[in-house]
Amino acid sequence: MDLFERWESNVRGYARTYPTVFKSASNARQTDEAGKSYIDFFGGAGVLNFGHNNPRMKEAIIKFIEADGIPHSLDMMTTTKRDFIKAFTETILAPRGWDYRMQFTGPTGTNAVEAALKLARRVTGRKQVIAFTNGFHGMTLGALAATANAYFRNAAGVPLNHVERLPFGHPLEGMEEVYADPSSGYEPPAAILVEPIQAEGGVNVADAEWLKAIRKFAKDRGALFILDDIQAGCGRTGSYFSFDEMDLDPDIITLAKGIGGFGTPLAMNLNKPEFDKHWSPGEHTGTFRGQGISFIAGMVAMDYFKDDTFMADVRRKGEIMEKRLQKMARPGMEVRGKGMMQGLDTKDGAYAKKVVAECFENGLLLGGCGSEGRVAKLIPPLTIDDADLNEGLDIMEAAMEAALVRA
Amino acid sequence: MDLFERWESNVRGYARTYPTVFKSASNARQTDEAGKSYIDFFGGAGVLNFGHNNPRMKEAIIKFIEADGIPHSLDMMTTTKRDFIKAFTETILAPRGWDYRMQFTGPTGTNAVEAALKLARRVTGRKQVIAFTNGFHGMTLGALAATANAYFRNAAGVPLNHVERLPFGHPLEGMEEVYADPSSGYEPPAAILVEPIQAEGGVNVADAEWLKAIRKFAKDRGALFILDDIQAGCGRTGSYFSFDEMDLDPDIITLAKGIGGFGTPLAMNLNKPEFDKHWSPGEHTGTFRGQGISFIAGMVAMDYFKDDTFMADVRRKGEIMEKRLQKMARPGMEVRGKGMMQGLDTKDGAYAKKVVAECFENGLLLGGCGSEGRVAKLIPPLTIDDADLNEGLDIMEAAMEAALVRA
Amino acid sequence: MDLFERWESNVRGYARTYPTVFKSASNARQTDEAGKSYIDFFGGAGVLNFGHNNPRMKEAIIKFIEADGIPHSLDMMTTTKRDFIKAFTETILAPRGWDYRMQFTGPTGTNAVEAALKLARRVTGRKQVIAFTNGFHGMTLGALAATANAYFRNAAGVPLNHVERLPFGHPLEGMEEVYADPSSGYEPPAAILVEPIQAEGGVNVADAEWLKAIRKFAKDRGALFILDDIQAGCGRTGSYFSFDEMDLDPDIITLAKGIGGFGTPLAMNLNKPEFDKHWSPGEHTGTFRGQGISFIAGMVAMDYFKDDTFMADVRRKGEIMEKRLQKMARPGMEVRGKGMMQGLDTKDGAYAKKVVAECFENGLLLGGCGSEGRVAKLIPPLTIDDADLNEGLDIMEAAMEAALVRA
Amino acid sequence: MDLFERWESNVRGYARTYPTVFKSASNARQTDEAGKSYIDFFGGAGVLNFGHNNPRMKEAIIKFIEADGIPHSLDMMTTTKRDFIKAFTETILAPRGWDYRMQFTGPTGTNAVEAALKLARRVTGRKQVIAFTNGFHGMTLGALAATANAYFRNAAGVPLNHVERLPFGHPLEGMEEVYADPSSGYEPPAAILVEPIQAEGGVNVADAEWLKAIRKFAKDRGALFILDDIQAGCGRTGSYFSFDEMDLDPDIITLAKGIGGFGTPLAMNLNKPEFDKHWSPGEHTGTFRGQGISFIAGMVAMDYFKDDTFMADVRRKGEIMEKRLQKMARPGMEVRGKGMMQGLDTKDGAYAKKVVAECFENGLLLGGCGSEGRVAKLIPPLTIDDADLNEGLDIMEAAMEAALVRA
Repeated sequence: MDLFERWESNVRGYARTYPTVFKSASNARQTDEAGKSYIDFFGGAGVLNFGHNNPRMKEAIIKFIEADGIPHSLDMMTTTKRDFIKAFTETILAPRGWDYRMQFTGPTGTNAVEAALKLARRVTGRKQVIAFTNGFHGMTLGALAATANAYFRNAAGVPLNHVERLPFGHPLEGMEEVYADPSSGYEPPAAILVEPIQAEGGVNVADAEWLKAIRKFAKDRGALFILDDIQAGCGRTGSYFSFDEMDLDPDIITLAKGIGGFGTPLAMNLNKPEFDKHWSPGEHTGTFRGQGISFIAGMVAMDYFKDDTFMADVRRKGEIMEKRLQKMARPGMEVRGKGMMQGLDTKDGAYAKKVVAECFENGLLLGGCGSEGRVAKLIPPLTIDDADLNEGLDIMEAAMEAALVRA
Repeated sequence: MDLFERWESNVRGYARTYPTVFKSASNARQTDEAGKSYIDFFGGAGVLNFGHNNPRMKEAIIKFIEADGIPHSLDMMTTTKRDFIKAFTETILAPRGWDYRMQFTGPTGTNAVEAALKLARRVTGRKQVIAFTNGFHGMTLGALAATANAYFRNAAGVPLNHVERLPFGHPLEGMEEVYADPSSGYEPPAAILVEPIQAEGGVNVADAEWLKAIRKFAKDRGALFILDDIQAGCGRTGSYFSFDEMDLDPDIITLAKGIGGFGTPLAMNLNKPEFDKHWSPGEHTGTFRGQGISFIAGMVAMDYFKDDTFMADVRRKGEIMEKRLQKMARPGMEVRGKGMMQGLDTKDGAYAKKVVAECFENGLLLGGCGSEGRVAKLIPPLTIDDADLNEGLDIMEAAMEAALVRA
Repeated sequence: MDLFERWESNVRGYARTYPTVFKSASNARQTDEAGKSYIDFFGGAGVLNFGHNNPRMKEAIIKFIEADGIPHSLDMMTTTKRDFIKAFTETILAPRGWDYRMQFTGPTGTNAVEAALKLARRVTGRKQVIAFTNGFHGMTLGALAATANAYFRNAAGVPLNHVERLPFGHPLEGMEEVYADPSSGYEPPAAILVEPIQAEGGVNVADAEWLKAIRKFAKDRGALFILDDIQAGCGRTGSYFSFDEMDLDPDIITLAKGIGGFGTPLAMNLNKPEFDKHWSPGEHTGTFRGQGISFIAGMVAMDYFKDDTFMADVRRKGEIMEKRLQKMARPGMEVRGKGMMQGLDTKDGAYAKKVVAECFENGLLLGGCGSEGRVAKLIPPLTIDDADLNEGLDIMEAAMEAALVRA
Repeated sequence: MDLFERWESNVRGYARTYPTVFKSASNARQTDEAGKSYIDFFGGAGVLNFGHNNPRMKEAIIKFIEADGIPHSLDMMTTTKRDFIKAFTETILAPRGWDYRMQFTGPTGTNAVEAALKLARRVTGRKQVIAFTNGFHGMTLGALAATANAYFRNAAGVPLNHVERLPFGHPLEGMEEVYADPSSGYEPPAAILVEPIQAEGGVNVADAEWLKAIRKFAKDRGALFILDDIQAGCGRTGSYFSFDEMDLDPDIITLAKGIGGFGTPLAMNLNKPEFDKHWSPGEHTGTFRGQGISFIAGMVAMDYFKDDTFMADVRRKGEIMEKRLQKMARPGMEVRGKGMMQGLDTKDGAYAKKVVAECFENGLLLGGCGSEGRVAKLIPPLTIDDADLNEGLDIMEAAMEAALVRA
């Protein structure tokens, strides 16, 4: 660990939360170099929906590499990319009757959000974007302007403009009027950008009716409705999109994290064709837009969505998680979540930190989120088996007790 | 190809320049699904310095995957990452006597630049960054503000502020005075951000004396001196950094593209310790900062820099390229470059486009850069063999003739 | 009138509303060059509280000029300025037990607001200012950012940043929470800027309880509470400040318009001493800060506030106005106002324009305000006699009938 | 003086430079309440071109007030304003064969500049304005962005964007190229804003050839060419405009300060008709745009320009000033100026402050300008008689000696 201390930047964070050196990982477990095994409720920050080193993906990737498949192609056409597009459209878009254009951006969530905001501003000729309290959309300046957290925002070093913030989940009453009045000072927005479930913001689950209302609000004002499903999408909540069956008809959906599946980067926006055509060729570029290994793994991931079996199991395990958390929750605490993204809001950042540390000691990787990290967020691989899931929950329950005693 | 037209975003660009579907690739050749083989002078936009599917990297990656190495770890510590850090510090930093902190950012060049600008603004408490005409630093709003090209900038949809632009390569005479005068209206800058060789901007090679002058200019004003070596670094010019032996002492070096080596993403800034310590933990995050496969490949890449053999060969092949280009250049045209990044400025965007198209027809992938794409940029894998290199140059020479006739 | 059409800018506005050439004016009447007399309910946009060519002011000004008093002194000290300061502190500040520093800015309301915002940002080190829907604070870019009207804002040609807008008069419920949460994305504000009565915005009278709530909101967050009393102050509402007896304790009060009294410009901020001391000498300058004639007239104006006689009469006439307007108001219309600033919201911009035009035809100068000018605003000189006041109201009543018929 | 200390804002500046209380003033002399007389080389910061209490103006103003002329009319039409427009067009515009629209803005220089920038941005649809080192254009945020001085800029409390700065007087060589290249990062500007003579910036006189070059530069790029003649115009330099006979053909001329003549505020832009028509009615407003007393005095001022007699005398006195300054200047010092705006650059701010203080002691009001106030600026009323002029120069010469001794 000295070598990291000596050479790596002071900016590193998780290295402090989980102070050990990991060596290998399989499905829902990571093992450190001392041989200690950890159950993983952190899931690579929402990337590893199909587990570490998913065997099907391993096999496909090795085959791809051995065959000299193309690992890096920018936005050139490759057979691998075509296979991925085909699998995605057939498995995800077709059953929903959806028509979107797939835009592969630089392979990070923040880049996907930047591209979405550029397109919305281009389409509307407007500048202001409405985003919400506690929203998280990325670290580069365009996306960071939409991100709420002051700790991240302060690091910008320059003002972050052209985003208006409204309270997440609060009714928009009164807002119709002020946006309609040209003397009000409220400009018609280019877009409304919202996470159906705020993951980093504290596992805040938006109400379907509220989402419909802001969707209508956007449509009524000629603004694009952008759903950021980067952390909550790709099966995490028990259906492919976290907002399935809400009839929301988003104009742009931003995806990243779980889309590649194996942990290698990929990011993809789904743009409605009537808006996508506003892009001119090459206006938003990025070196790593064509990641062969991620396409291969992403294609394997599609197998999990051919029928409802896997998703049904995710919902079942989500219920287990929720019930256990409800049981653990002390008075004043709150359990929130959907499917296998579950959060326990301890309402106490210092306490939550102790719980996380206690879990780590006892072989569980758990992450905090929300204001001051007071919400314990559980996002294990969707493929976790019941034994590991229950053992992890046991460790967490014990840690909550132990942290109380230490407090 | 219909499937791409049907489903992929209108924003795609290289798919139009190289209208075929590629299936596999090896060292300096890509093969399309019809079996046609192309010599690759495009090199994955500067990523594939060690060739497509470098055999040593393939072997190491497959071994890594088979052993359940950790492909994705955010900024947690892993044995793989430690090995990479060790190899990099021993091979690159130690021989130069350099002390830097390594900051792994979101794995794209634009993210590395965003992080560097944040740090410079944090350290200095200032906002304005000086960047240069024809500079290219990325597509997200913070980096895009420093990028010069109007086509990219216009896509932002909002004003891009807090960057002042000076002409690349022009002397700063008169500027010392205006920056010193508090009544001049010029604010002391947070940083000067410059590419030692502008790749996208047209293969413009900065003079060492000029770079030293702006380095001094930065130091005299308490501004950080940031070298963006994302495309020109990692051995491309015949030494590891494009600015080696210029005695520039940069405060931050941004690296990406070639650092991972295999085509999987990685980005890393080298920050001087006295500035790096200004980061608080987790202030600049990003999901895909810990890419196991890229670390493995990057470690293999280090082998190429244990002694000067490989770099000497790069310089030798660079000379071949330069001589052939000088021969091809018609009056008024200009050859610019260093090592195996060579550009032929045709001074005519329409003509250059024809050359690129003609090359493609005849089995050579060549890219344009600079204003209106008028500069043919040659950045083949550094590992290209002489036969392919010469054949590629032959195709290009013929294409230049043919394009003339067609004009 | 041809000469104006020929030579004056297309930007002129009131010249179109009142298409005649005025020659002279006395108290509440303006006379055009054809000899037609108009009753003035427009009051020089709130400047002429003491009537056109107030005889006491005329006398004092002529005496001042004849004695070679100093008409223009920037921020040098003059005996005239001292007399004004003395009269103002004794008449206005002392009886209220207030301690403020008087800052004479460039002699326009917009300049006063710009100075107030600079000071608030300086004191707090923050950037964001909270302003309100339908607020009006001026035309220069700093003040315009706080002004709500889109017609004015669009003329800026650049984005107007660093102002957040909240709905005027709406409760702040929920806002305490989001401003307290560092993860919410709401930054602590430098200032809250509000008009106790929005004049241009449509004669919207803020509720005292609401003003107290936002005053507390500001204080709790370390933000300055700025009251813009430029149009509603100086006796207009029946007491010197429009917010007297509300116990608001503003940190800065911006004054202009009526402060000079004769129609010559003057603007003055009242800054709390603990904030004022943050100014360094000469940081906010302006050529015309020391207007002798305005000081003289402003001193005469102080005579009107030595006791409550004049203010009582203003309240009496205000009631006459209000009653008549209530009588005129058709169903759906709304009467709003305080003292001698009264507005009749016709809820119909086209209709209101007809009323204004009809009034002009019949010898009454009436102005519109609010969205699409749908609110008839009555701000006659406070010195208007009852005969003129009633005659004006008669003309207006008839015009409202006539405009209905024509509609 | 205690009363000022007690009640006036800490921001006051000239009150500290000239620590006495003035009571009256006549032509080029101000008298304090103790009866001490000061020769005025400060001229109300360039306002009092026709002397304090110019007798012709006094008479006309008193007559105007006695006749109940309209002192305040916003942008309504009045006979007084028509008379002024007529006098100005006949005296100033007609002889030059110029066609401009006169826009009366809020009566301060900063407001005139704000209006000019709005119009330029409106006409071009662009945002960036080019302004110059050491330029001074006002204190409100739009104009302040174009102002160079860091002391003033820092008081803004928010970033000042959308202005690019070039070195005043330096050739634009190389700039044509970068502005022409869409890949350079230089956006085509909305306007170039320049003072033909920088007054506050240090009496820097622009070369006619350079002004022509930037005028061409603007025209070639479709940018408006705006001359800020607020301090140097209105006869100050020996012709009405400071740039007369330079054949510059400005698109907008901003005027204020001396235009009203008596010290009461007035500001007026001259807009070319083809640009002025882009204004919609009422887009840029301001309460105090129609100042009767200023119109009257401004009309009287026109008498001074009916023939060349007055201007010839200004040039004659300007030469006296220049010669005396040349004589006073020590090695390393520099005399700059035109007509009766003359500056002595002492190159030493501390020394210059001593000179100013010494002059004040000995009955001369002299002001500093330029970086650290190191330039003594002489702008006496144009009507000063030779006796006062010479006496003032004598005092200054002695002060320069005395200040040396004290240093």
